[in-house]
Amino acid sequence: MHSKGRRQKAPNLTKLLDNKPVIIVSNRGPAEFRRNEAGNITSKRGGGGLVTAMTAVSEATHATWISAAMTDVERSMAKKDNLIGFPENNPLYNVRLVDIPKDIYNRYYNTISNPLLWFIHHYIWDLCNTPSFTEETHKAWGEGYVAANKLFAEAAARESLKLKNPIIMLQDYHLFLAARYIRELTSEPFLFHFTHIPWPEPDYMSILPFKVRHQILKGMLANDIVGFQSRHYAGNFLLCCESLLGAQINWRKRSVMWQEREVFVRTYPISIDYGNLHKISESDEVLKYETKLLKENADMSLIIRTDRSDPSKNIIRGFMAYDVLLSRHPNFKGKVKFLALLYPTREGIMEYKKYRREIEATVKDINERHGAENWQPIYLRMKDDYLESIAALKHYDVLLVNPIFDGMNLVAKEGPAVNKNDGILILSENAGALSELGNSGIIVNPFDIEETAAAMYRALTMPMYERKARAANLRETVEQNNSLKWIHYQLKDIVGLEKKRMLEGV
Amino acid sequence: MHSKGRRQKAPNLTKLLDNKPVIIVSNRGPAEFRRNEAGNITSKRGGGGLVTAMTAVSEATHATWISAAMTDVERSMAKKDNLIGFPENNPLYNVRLVDIPKDIYNRYYNTISNPLLWFIHHYIWDLCNTPSFTEETHKAWGEGYVAANKLFAEAAARESLKLKNPIIMLQDYHLFLAARYIRELTSEPFLFHFTHIPWPEPDYMSILPFKVRHQILKGMLANDIVGFQSRHYAGNFLLCCESLLGAQINWRKRSVMWQEREVFVRTYPISIDYGNLHKISESDEVLKYETKLLKENADMSLIIRTDRSDPSKNIIRGFMAYDVLLSRHPNFKGKVKFLALLYPTREGIMEYKKYRREIEATVKDINERHGAENWQPIYLRMKDDYLESIAALKHYDVLLVNPIFDGMNLVAKEGPAVNKNDGILILSENAGALSELGNSGIIVNPFDIEETAAAMYRALTMPMYERKARAANLRETVEQNNSLKWIHYQLKDIVGLEKKRMLEGV
Repeated sequence: MHSKGRRQKAPNLTKLLDNKPVIIVSNRGPAEFRRNEAGNITSKRGGGGLVTAMTAVSEATHATWISAAMTDVERSMAKKDNLIGFPENNPLYNVRLVDIPKDIYNRYYNTISNPLLWFIHHYIWDLCNTPSFTEETHKAWGEGYVAANKLFAEAAARESLKLKNPIIMLQDYHLFLAARYIRELTSEPFLFHFTHIPWPEPDYMSILPFKVRHQILKGMLANDIVGFQSRHYAGNFLLCCESLLGAQINWRKRSVMWQEREVFVRTYPISIDYGNLHKISESDEVLKYETKLLKENADMSLIIRTDRSDPSKNIIRGFMAYDVLLSRHPNFKGKVKFLALLYPTREGIMEYKKYRREIEATVKDINERHGAENWQPIYLRMKDDYLESIAALKHYDVLLVNPIFDGMNLVAKEGPAVNKNDGILILSENAGALSELGNSGIIVNPFDIEETAAAMYRALTMPMYERKARAANLRETVEQNNSLKWIHYQLKDIVGLEKKRMLEGV
Repeated sequence: MHSKGRRQKAPNLTKLLDNKPVIIVSNRGPAEFRRNEAGNITSKRGGGGLVTAMTAVSEATHATWISAAMTDVERSMAKKDNLIGFPENNPLYNVRLVDIPKDIYNRYYNTISNPLLWFIHHYIWDLCNTPSFTEETHKAWGEGYVAANKLFAEAAARESLKLKNPIIMLQDYHLFLAARYIRELTSEPFLFHFTHIPWPEPDYMSILPFKVRHQILKGMLANDIVGFQSRHYAGNFLLCCESLLGAQINWRKRSVMWQEREVFVRTYPISIDYGNLHKISESDEVLKYETKLLKENADMSLIIRTDRSDPSKNIIRGFMAYDVLLSRHPNFKGKVKFLALLYPTREGIMEYKKYRREIEATVKDINERHGAENWQPIYLRMKDDYLESIAALKHYDVLLVNPIFDGMNLVAKEGPAVNKNDGILILSENAGALSELGNSGIIVNPFDIEETAAAMYRALTMPMYERKARAANLRETVEQNNSLKWIHYQLKDIVGLEKKRMLEGV
């Protein structure tokens, strides 16, 4: 049952592509390169949904993967300007690092991408006070984001010229402009961009300076296809093109006419590597965490969340709902526990630092008010430990996924994939996962504490037959829509459009 | 030239309506009633754009104007349940006060209307932290907003049953539900609702609890026509109906099919009473303020803003832009002055209190850093004095109107109407006034300090011939689109739709 991992389906991609070369471009690459004590360069595969999903396509197509050099070691590798086989011992694809000078990278990444674009795309600015665009912002745009996108584009164009009609797959909000600059350098490649985060509606997008939002939209429209996590976010992008750029939209075909080219706007909900996740979930490290967790929480109903400590994840309102639950149903005290397994993130950004402090204060307050000598209502972990999270996900009764807005939210898929407890998913209506998982989860408005508390109560008191049915539906949905399908649909659209254009002589 | 006041055009309304009765419903009515020392009830006409505009239609049609009793005197009048001729000495229309018990009114007004709906419609929540919907919010909705709308609706239905096919004109975000309840009580009247503030896009509207946003949209769709300040906001409403309610939209006709009825979504940009404003601007009180102002600011270029001290007005970013201007062009020091004539507002709401403190701190900081012994860069007035504001508007060189979002913004129209200085309007692209005044003002992104500072510099250094041309265009636009036209277009659509329906036998 759990054997439908990516290894099995990989050949399909090879056949589908028929030897067409693929170039992937993303800010962060598939590996971290370091120098060991002997002075040799060693590598370690990176984590995260993007890397997992794109690794499948890289291996199947012997792709070239272009990403930013992150460390001094990587910068020196980037300067050599050559391709690096990866993994080292059995190279399946090539990595190419781009040397982005530190000051450019800092502006591109720490001033523009996070926080500015991230906050815009998740609707989390406090508009009365933030953002304010100053000379520094405009400079960070021109000398940071634009400059970095040009460097990525130059590297992509150079690799592209070595190949025959390659497909270039650009990833996420770091690279909104790259397609346009690549197109200026070479018209050969097929350009595809996928946005992993939400796309905001025009009024919110228009918070960005006039020039910035125009460049972003025009940059996106230099692609042949742009992909989004959900039909809703794809629709928001179309509205932005219409309303902010005055572009002509074909709503039936969901395409944009722009500079005598037709750009297709498509939906590809990202997913997890189901087979691989199962393998991890049965590993010794996870089993060790599991034993500990079960011992410490015997006879407890477990509400679990695991997220980066990002304000968009809406962690505090989750605690507020739990507080209401305990106040209204004190019989749960001593019988339920909330495990919040958080990963520290972006601590250089003021809003994140403040949010972390607020999380800690809220937990302390709830534990003090509701706790007893032998019972702590909330266990808060602030540490990057993926394996502990997986161990916990195997045993939740309730999984809380209540982001303010979220591109997809892979925890909502990882949880049901590994959970052994017929646990219930509480899911924000603003997570991209809604369209696939909404039918079997309990949907909540993330701002509605009352509704979230009621959802927790309902989940904790749900009859077993209903829990079983819901959990089975979720598991099946996640199993069927794995990350390989996500890639497969993208490549199918790309190849299909290329063929159509060839036939039509465009 | 300035004679096209409302008195001249009023007969048109009478003719257009052909004796059809009109009922106006708004939270705040046209008058404040008090008891004088002798124990008699006296009245004072209220201010504000809504009252001014709706007074014209009330007088022309001998309307019945329904509004909430605000004081104990008014509550005791409301209990008598009769119509009050107004103005007392020469009754032209009737006022009917509704007794809304204090606890209901408090929840309806101070918990739901302001701040919840106001903040949603202006995009000014800080979503990581606010709003959070608790038991109290849900209670304030049901026992406050819903209850108050029912009381307004009952009063309107009762008055309606006394008349033959009346037109009921519901005003603004306090009364989103009234049409639905009126329709439950009587199917006779023609129902029209006008939203004076912005209408948000679906993602932002969906912040509201599921039940709340559904009730609001369904309440609005109980009208025959709903009116908005701009085509953009009307479009946002249509998107909300489509996306949040699943209603069928006819985008060509800009109508919504709902429960076998067709609801038309129309745009009526509100304006000022040009003639009356001119009369006021020539009054002795204004002339006195004017003399003082000119004496105190001789030889100064004046940047002026006048607003309620509402966070949506974006007052602090205006000062930040001025700060940049003075830093970058120190030659302006001692030659320019920023008059911020603000009205304290909603001081019971935490966000407003905080915003006022921030305004005062920002002004103090800028005055300290840039000021000199004989020159204070910013003069801040925090007092409700409309006549002083009018006096100042006559003499601005630059009028700053940079709201975050704004339904229309009447200051952007009052300023050009009375200004004698060929002053330049700096206008936020998110003000409803943009579509009428954008061509002749300097448009800015309200979040872009750099752009706003550049706009100030450009306005202060603009050649006289360009100032004259722009000011003349603005004046002409404002003069032609006066508040009577606003009412006229509404009534024309209402009468036209009624006739069409009669002919079609609907």
